[in-house]
Amino acid sequence: MKISFQGEPGAYSEQAAFDYFGSVETVPCESFESVFDSVVSGKSDAALIPIENSLAGSIHQNYDLLLRHDLHIVGEYFLRVRHCLIANPGVKMKDVKKAISHPQALGQCAGYLRSRGVKAEQAYDTAGSVKMLKESGARDAAAIASKRAAEIYGMEILEEGIEDNPENYTRFLAVQKEPVVPKGEAKTSIVFTLKNVPGALFKALSVFALRDLDLTKIESRPLQGKPWEYLFYIDFVGSMHDETSRRALDHLGEYALTLRTLGSYPRFKG
Amino acid sequence: MKISFQGEPGAYSEQAAFDYFGSVETVPCESFESVFDSVVSGKSDAALIPIENSLAGSIHQNYDLLLRHDLHIVGEYFLRVRHCLIANPGVKMKDVKKAISHPQALGQCAGYLRSRGVKAEQAYDTAGSVKMLKESGARDAAAIASKRAAEIYGMEILEEGIEDNPENYTRFLAVQKEPVVPKGEAKTSIVFTLKNVPGALFKALSVFALRDLDLTKIESRPLQGKPWEYLFYIDFVGSMHDETSRRALDHLGEYALTLRTLGSYPRFKG
Repeated sequence: MKISFQGEPGAYSEQAAFDYFGSVETVPCESFESVFDSVVSGKSDAALIPIENSLAGSIHQNYDLLLRHDLHIVGEYFLRVRHCLIANPGVKMKDVKKAISHPQALGQCAGYLRSRGVKAEQAYDTAGSVKMLKESGARDAAAIASKRAAEIYGMEILEEGIEDNPENYTRFLAVQKEPVVPKGEAKTSIVFTLKNVPGALFKALSVFALRDLDLTKIESRPLQGKPWEYLFYIDFVGSMHDETSRRALDHLGEYALTLRTLGSYPRFKG
Repeated sequence: MKISFQGEPGAYSEQAAFDYFGSVETVPCESFESVFDSVVSGKSDAALIPIENSLAGSIHQNYDLLLRHDLHIVGEYFLRVRHCLIANPGVKMKDVKKAISHPQALGQCAGYLRSRGVKAEQAYDTAGSVKMLKESGARDAAAIASKRAAEIYGMEILEEGIEDNPENYTRFLAVQKEPVVPKGEAKTSIVFTLKNVPGALFKALSVFALRDLDLTKIESRPLQGKPWEYLFYIDFVGSMHDETSRRALDHLGEYALTLRTLGSYPRFKG
């Protein structure tokens, strides 16, 4: 099986892909857009995309890409993110003046960097910043990335677990062309639009509340070309193949202008 | 009056500050964090911060900063964003290989740049990228920023209105130390947390729906240290000094674990 992920080898997304899919061939992609494209074109069988981090919030671009592509969510995975400060061999902590990484990783270590007087510099990828650092040979800089990225590129770990908050998890979604019918406890992800009238969202949420269906996430994104109107993404516990969830979705269809089910999939068990 | 904004002179935020406050002294700040700090410390009297763009969505960092600072929202303003492609004098469109700007501006012109075969390069600010371009004297690059930024730095506009979607508006909030009591139609912004139980958000929205109060925005942000629990930000039409809104907020207080009113302020009239 070929699994696409965004980033360089050693990216957290690649680690999550191995954890979730097991022994697979991973396909590194430069952007989230190319991750989706690679699955659509058949270059890979599935992809694992980060959708939300417990500290930084949603990865909104991937919400937008789910909407623009005809793929199905078939699974979810939660990765505990443990950032390392990584440098060229022999570099000492006191030499490090700047830290290079993806903006989200920099944000998650902002307190640590401030306390050490280290400046943050943005790069497009965590593992990619380790690769860049190795190529440049810089001795006044470090990268923030996974332990695995340090190992792949033969670099040294100056400090491990430098994230400000240990409750640092990223939720990933597995997407592919064909939907699955989950067995056991499931979650369902949907996206819908509503009339722009008072009480519209309240009515939409009623279809879940009236059936005791548990919402685990609600996200709003701007509706393109209609300023201050929104798309709503909701995840709830249940499968569209269950009677109760099916009725809730039918009921939501009465209020929604548009409604799409992005997938029902097994709920992740830690 | 001194008004803080994020960015260099010529930034869209500075334009919005002049439009909203009139003839004031503007205080450029490098980060949103320093914008908030400048008001708290008394270095400026108020600030104008972007909170949402009609195409790109919310500026989540400013939601987080509103929570961390004890300032009041006292007004809102909607700016029509019109991006220009700006270059050093004499540079021709065919010479431009890359465009430098803030990631959000680059995103809003992504289609335009793709169609012209121009590569995007991220910078920390729109007007700042014009300044950088002038200093470098580069003749193979252009910046994306406001018309005013081109004028301030004596640069040439190659093309105006290059945003992919003309429905491009940014909503700004005016914040200061003292709250206001709005006259006429008002909006109120609140932030709250809920018990993590099924139906909690539905109950919270009921306090508005049952009173026909119109929600204009709902945004969720991660609750730090409690993975997959959320803070909810809501804007609704009404003032906390009105009987109906006051009762809705009292009612919400019955369900909410925490509830803070960020401000009631005059609703913007286009």
